[in-house]
Amino acid sequence: MTGDTPEQNVKKLAGLIKGVKVAMLTTRCPDGSLRSRPMLTQEADFDGTLWFFTRAQAPKVGEVERHEQVNVSYAAPEDERYVSVSGTARLVRDPRKIKELWNPAYKAWFPQGLDDPELALLRVEAERAEY
Amino acid sequence: MTGDTPEQNVKKLAGLIKGVKVAMLTTRCPDGSLRSRPMLTQEADFDGTLWFFTRAQAPKVGEVERHEQVNVSYAAPEDERYVSVSGTARLVRDPRKIKELWNPAYKAWFPQGLDDPELALLRVEAERAEY
Repeated sequence: MTGDTPEQNVKKLAGLIKGVKVAMLTTRCPDGSLRSRPMLTQEADFDGTLWFFTRAQAPKVGEVERHEQVNVSYAAPEDERYVSVSGTARLVRDPRKIKELWNPAYKAWFPQGLDDPELALLRVEAERAEY
Repeated sequence: MTGDTPEQNVKKLAGLIKGVKVAMLTTRCPDGSLRSRPMLTQEADFDGTLWFFTRAQAPKVGEVERHEQVNVSYAAPEDERYVSVSGTARLVRDPRKIKELWNPAYKAWFPQGLDDPELALLRVEAERAEY
């Protein structure tokens, strides 16, 4: 992400991560170890912020509350695209935002859908990206 | 990695990561941010230790010298395999080990091959895996 304007960088990154359905979110655990898990990505175009559905009481939420710095990596081996996004994460429980990003396909992971009181979002502000 | 013996766990993990040619290695930077980059995996069967070729002076080497705890993630979207390995990393410059793991295909990344004085290995001891 050098040389171009911030807008150009965001646009370039948006193109690179588009179509990658699952990203790996890496967090730092209280013991200092780094842990990652797959996260469903959003179809909406990237504008500098990444959103992921989560359960509000998932362990990763506790991890980002202690250490907000996370990494989100995108791997598309078929065309050798590998992207690293460093950023800060926080839990968002805004029902309007949840409704805006909700997709019925997510019912496979959240069977109660929008009625699930544990349904929440992780908002990741991208600070640096590499590819 | 619960319930089974350590040997069974290592074997299970070996099967899950087999065939994934590129893993994402996440390290912690001095400023606390988490950064990841693609790493070529080894064809040899996993026995609890992961090995990656690197340049001895690559930024990631400096990062693991400060914070040895890393994450290695494997994504095989075509069959929905996503694996997280938490472990500790260190630089290894043993020419015998380098020769043992070397594959001429790596010349695309290290044109000088085994004569490259910067050619080194990152050894990652797996401590916890999730899938």
